Formats: sequence, C-alpha cells, structure tokens
Amino acid sequence: MGWWHFRHDWVSMYTSDEWVGFGSENPLPLDSGGSLSPVELAYETHGQLSPQGDNAILICHALTGNAHVASTPGTPPGWWEHMVGPGKAIDTTRFFVVCSNVIGGCAGSTGPSSLNPQLGVPYGIQFPVITIGDMVRAQHALLDVLGIPEWQAVIGGSMGGMQALEWACMYPDQVKAVIAIACTAKLSPQALAFDSVGRHAILSDPHWNNGFYYGLDVQPHDGLAIARMIGHITYLSDEAMRLKFGRNLQQRTDYGYDFNTEFQVESYLLYQGDKFVNRFDANSYLYLTKAVNYFDLEKKYGSLEGAFEASSARFLVVSIDSDWLYPPHQSKELTSTLMKLNKQVSYATLASPYGHDAFLMDTPALTQLVGAFLCQ
Amino acid sequence: MGWWHFRHDWVSMYTSDEWVGFGSENPLPLDSGGSLSPVELAYETHGQLSPQGDNAILICHALTGNAHVASTPGTPPGWWEHMVGPGKAIDTTRFFVVCSNVIGGCAGSTGPSSLNPQLGVPYGIQFPVITIGDMVRAQHALLDVLGIPEWQAVIGGSMGGMQALEWACMYPDQVKAVIAIACTAKLSPQALAFDSVGRHAILSDPHWNNGFYYGLDVQPHDGLAIARMIGHITYLSDEAMRLKFGRNLQQRTDYGYDFNTEFQVESYLLYQGDKFVNRFDANSYLYLTKAVNYFDLEKKYGSLEGAFEASSARFLVVSIDSDWLYPPHQSKELTSTLMKLNKQVSYATLASPYGHDAFLMDTPALTQLVGAFLCQ
Repeated sequence: MGWWHFRHDWVSMYTSDEWVGFGSENPLPLDSGGSLSPVELAYETHGQLSPQGDNAILICHALTGNAHVASTPGTPPGWWEHMVGPGKAIDTTRFFVVCSNVIGGCAGSTGPSSLNPQLGVPYGIQFPVITIGDMVRAQHALLDVLGIPEWQAVIGGSMGGMQALEWACMYPDQVKAVIAIACTAKLSPQALAFDSVGRHAILSDPHWNNGFYYGLDVQPHDGLAIARMIGHITYLSDEAMRLKFGRNLQQRTDYGYDFNTEFQVESYLLYQGDKFVNRFDANSYLYLTKAVNYFDLEKKYGSLEGAFEASSARFLVVSIDSDWLYPPHQSKELTSTLMKLNKQVSYATLASPYGHDAFLMDTPALTQLVGAFLCQ
Repeated sequence: MGWWHFRHDWVSMYTSDEWVGFGSENPLPLDSGGSLSPVELAYETHGQLSPQGDNAILICHALTGNAHVASTPGTPPGWWEHMVGPGKAIDTTRFFVVCSNVIGGCAGSTGPSSLNPQLGVPYGIQFPVITIGDMVRAQHALLDVLGIPEWQAVIGGSMGGMQALEWACMYPDQVKAVIAIACTAKLSPQALAFDSVGRHAILSDPHWNNGFYYGLDVQPHDGLAIARMIGHITYLSDEAMRLKFGRNLQQRTDYGYDFNTEFQVESYLLYQGDKFVNRFDANSYLYLTKAVNYFDLEKKYGSLEGAFEASSARFLVVSIDSDWLYPPHQSKELTSTLMKLNKQVSYATLASPYGHDAFLMDTPALTQLVGAFLCQ
C-alpha cells in the first residue's frame, strides 16, 4: 500500500493503534493535481467480515464527525449509536461496518494538523486542498487492507452522503448500494455563502496566524467558534428553534439592557461554539468546508447523468422536509436523474421539524427506512 | 423641548445643519429606566406641510439606513428614491414627508459614537441600550418641532416597520395609518440567532477594544464585516442567490485549490462587508440589532391585542413570499390580530424572489400597494 498508515482505533477485533501498511512509494493522488504522502487513515470496524467478504458496509461521517460511529465495550457512544449495532438498522451481527475519519480532518487521519514530513512541523495551510473525491480515493485503500472486494452499501448524511454518492461515481463496480441522507450533488449558493463567512471568520482571526498556530499559546478559537455558531443555525430549522428556545431568556425574566447573553438561543450557540473549539481544528474546518463547497458532480462529470451512468448500485435518497441547508428539492433532482438512468432508487422526504440535524437524531422513520433498504 | 437638538440635513426648505431646540432639562426617558440627554435628531423633510398640518407622513428607516430617504436637488439618491418624490407613490407634492435617523444610529442622531457629555469622549458602550420604543419616543418630539398634530401615515420596512407598529401602539391617537412592510411584531429565534452571532463577531474582535475604538488607528472592521456578511445572506433568498450568483466562479473557470475567494457569492459578500465598515459604526450595529431583538409587542403590552387595542389607525401589512428572515406567517398573524380587533387592515404577500431586501427594491407591485393605500 506504499506510504500509508491505517490506524485502527476503538475496535474490539484488533488492538488499538494498529498500523497497516507504510512506506514511501505510492502517494495518494489528489484532484488538485498534487499528491499526499504519507497518508494515515483512522478507522473503526464493527461486526465480523464474512469469509467471502460480502457483508461490508462503509459509513461516511459528516463535516465534524469521526470514525467512532458506534460504541464497543469500554468506549463512549458513537455519533450514530442508535443506527449502528447488534440488531439495529445497520445490524453489526449481519454486517461488517467500517467507518474512517476523512483526510483533511482532525480525528486521526492525515490532515492540516499532521506533521508535514518535509518540514517536520504540522502542515497548517501547506496541507493540500482536498476534495470529496480525494477522501473517497483514500477510503478506497481500506478495501484492499481489509480484504473486501466491494461494499454492500456506502452510507452517509450531509458531507457523508456526498462521499457515498462519489463512491458510486468513482468506483461504480464496487458499490452495491448507496444511502444518501440530507445530501446534495452540489451545494446551493446560500450554503456556500454560510461556509464562506465561517471560513472568513477563521481567516480573519489574528490568532489564526496564517494557519501556523499549532503549539502556540493562543488559538483561533474566536473565529472557529463563530464559524460553528453560523453552522449550527443552519443545521437547525426555524421551527426547531421555536420549539427548543422560542424567545425565552436564559435564567432571567426581563431584559438586562446590556450586551450579555440573554436569549436562550444565544446561550445555546455560544455554548456550542465554545465546546467545538476544544474538539476541532480550525484549519480542518477550512479544508473540510472547502471540500464540501467544491463538491459538484455535474461539474466534475459533465452532467449528473454522466456521474452515475456506470454505477451498478441501488440508491436510497432521503431528505428532511425542514432541512433548508440541503433542501429536499436537491434530493428530488438527484432522484429524478437516477430514475432517468433506470437505476433502482427509493426516495423519501422525512417529516421532521429538526432541520438538517435530523439525520443524526434518533428518528424512528429514518432508522426504519435504512433498515428496510438494507434488508432488500 | 429641553436638551434636544434637531439637525436638519439635505433639505431644500431649510439650510443644512439647522438646530431646533436645546437645553439641559427634559431628557429622553428610556425603556431601560434610564434617560438620554442631550438628544440630537438628524432628519429630512420633503414637500410642504399644509397650513392645517394634516398632510405629514413619517418614514422610518431600517437597521443600517439613515434620514436621506429621497434626493433633493444637489443631493445623492435616497434609500427609497423610487418610492418618495413628486408624483411617486409617497407623493411629495401632496404629502409632507419626514424621515429621521434613529437614536443609537450613526448617521447624525445621537448614538454610541456621539460625545458623552459627562466624560467628553464618545459614549462607546456607555451609551444606554435603547429599544424601538425609545426610537419612537425620540421621533415623537419631531411632531411639536415641526408643528404637526398627527401623522397621516407612519411607514417603514423591517426595523422601520417595527417603528411604524410601535408608533400605533405608543401614540394611538396620533397615527392615522400604518404601512408595515417585511416586518414582524417579534423576531423569530432564528433571526435572533443570526443577530447574536453578528454581535459576537464584533464583541470578539480584539480591535473592538470594549467599545472604545473611536479615534484609534485600528477599528473592529473584521467583526463588523462578518456581522454584515451574515446579515446579507439573511436579506437575500436562496432563490435570489441562485439567480444572482449560482455556483459561478469569480474571474476564473476552475477551482484554485487554495483559500482565496473563488465563488461569486463569496466575492459579493466580502465586498459588502468591506463597503459597510466604511459607512457604519460597529457599536451602532450592536445597539440597533439589540433594539430589534428586544422588540416584542406581546411582551411589552401583555398581548398583541393589547398592543393595538387603542389604535385608531388603518393598516397596510405587506410581507414578501421569499423573505425567510421576516417570514409571511408573522405578518399574517399580525393581520389576524388586527382583524380580530376590527381594525381597518389590508394585507398582501408580495411575490418576489429577492427575499427580505425586496422591500428596498423598485418593485412595481409594492409601489402600487403603497400609493393606492395612501390615496384611500
């Protein structure tokens, strides 16, 4: 596998921090024209691979996710705990489930906070700009490493759904099914705009220091928190915010006539921003939003039809009715294209007031859809 | 009038910078319980007041507006140039039109950048937190100054619409008609959230310097620009952005794989942010968004019915179908309440793809609605 590391964390079947493959040849080619080497991929597996290798599912995480999709004994709950496990919709007594941290991220796989081998310091913004296609090309190495000929399904929501779609386009013979939730073949300009302002907040934070803040006393926490706060508003719907916060004040009954935090919704956003900066790298936020913004299957393949033409997968496309960041009309357009191509495709609009975030929530209708589709 | 200044700019009927009334008694009482003194109001008038004083209209501006609602010979176009003037919907050959800069603003009226008379330096955040009610109470002084017994109409969009509604509630016998466009009786939590993040961007800009940046070399331009960029996204609709920018790149045909501005929508937002910091004061942005966030007629008057019960005005309520910041359902709720109270009320949802900003644009349907309502 050349100059690659595979780091296997939180997994019961191997010891932690197992490394698979390394060397100096065979770097990862990138859509930008450059390449990345070494590449380290942190991943988890759940369940047992069948002797024929015909029960493997790849789960792709969203913007700020990681490989820890579900718990194993002694580990904390995963980000899709209700969806993945023994007897659950993605049943680990039946399927061998793999989830890896994307490259560009900051949860074990190679990203801007990794050491730049040429300089011996973290990459910072010397890290190459990567795409969803690059993430998928990196994940593809896991097939060989794990001895899997093809995925029975590639599943993801939001940025994870983009990866699932890209898998079907890039490796049309190695993906038997795709589940793309709260997803799109290309972001709307409004969604681009929100990401752009978030990046601008990081880039204009003086502590961002041109991307070289690793190991320094001060970090670009203000910029990253602002980016996260903007993101959070877009992940929730107007209705979800009404249900959750309304115009309630935080621990007070009347206005304070000052600039302290007063409304519950303000307090919630500040909390989310503060919490986020302790677990996420500002440069990774730049790189991953850029990858999401660049994702455009029409542009890459000439047309949406051209993107999926060769795919032999069946598809489940799910949108959320209150999701204004990845609105249902985008998923419907994708579904229409797949139908025109005579692909086997199921589509559902999930009724939920919780906006884009609903794909991460324990929503019985979504769990049932995923479970039923995998049982087909 | 006590400790008040009235500054009359850009007006043909008086010389510029005319001052009306001053002194040290009679400060402006504020909803916070405090008071403001001195108070300076910058205002414009257009047309001639009738001998009976029965043709006066007040136009209230939105968040970042000013008193310059329309041009007079030798002045630049006003912010509602297509709506206000001889023979236009708000016809200055018939009406005497008044428009004043709100207190808390930065276009002539007293605000955080004004001199704090007790310290001899600009107020900064020593300026009291003001409300939409306080803005209206300040504007009320213009009636006496100009010899106007009552307004034939108070008209405004967005924050200007809030003032128009508050006029009808606070001075029920002095407002004969209200035109409230793209407005609400209280912001949704989603809109509160966007304003809150914008304020947070200013407050966390190190150059904000706890509000005391006047006269310093560096200003909190980064924070203010981010706030403006967030605002701009919310003023446009998803559809408007698709029509205006799509996913087009700015002066390039392919991705640059760097963190420079690439998409046209990014370039537009950066430009809007940069332009804004040269004409607006960051502290005023804090104060005015706070006033907008505090605006809640239900909370202030116990109920929406209670707020409008005493009003003798007739109402025109107009929402914009693509306005997701001040969504039509809020205007409909307001209209329903007014109808329950047996007020004379007309309601229209304007069809426009341009979102909240449509109220400022030259939209013939809106101009006709306003003109027809004023002719009744």
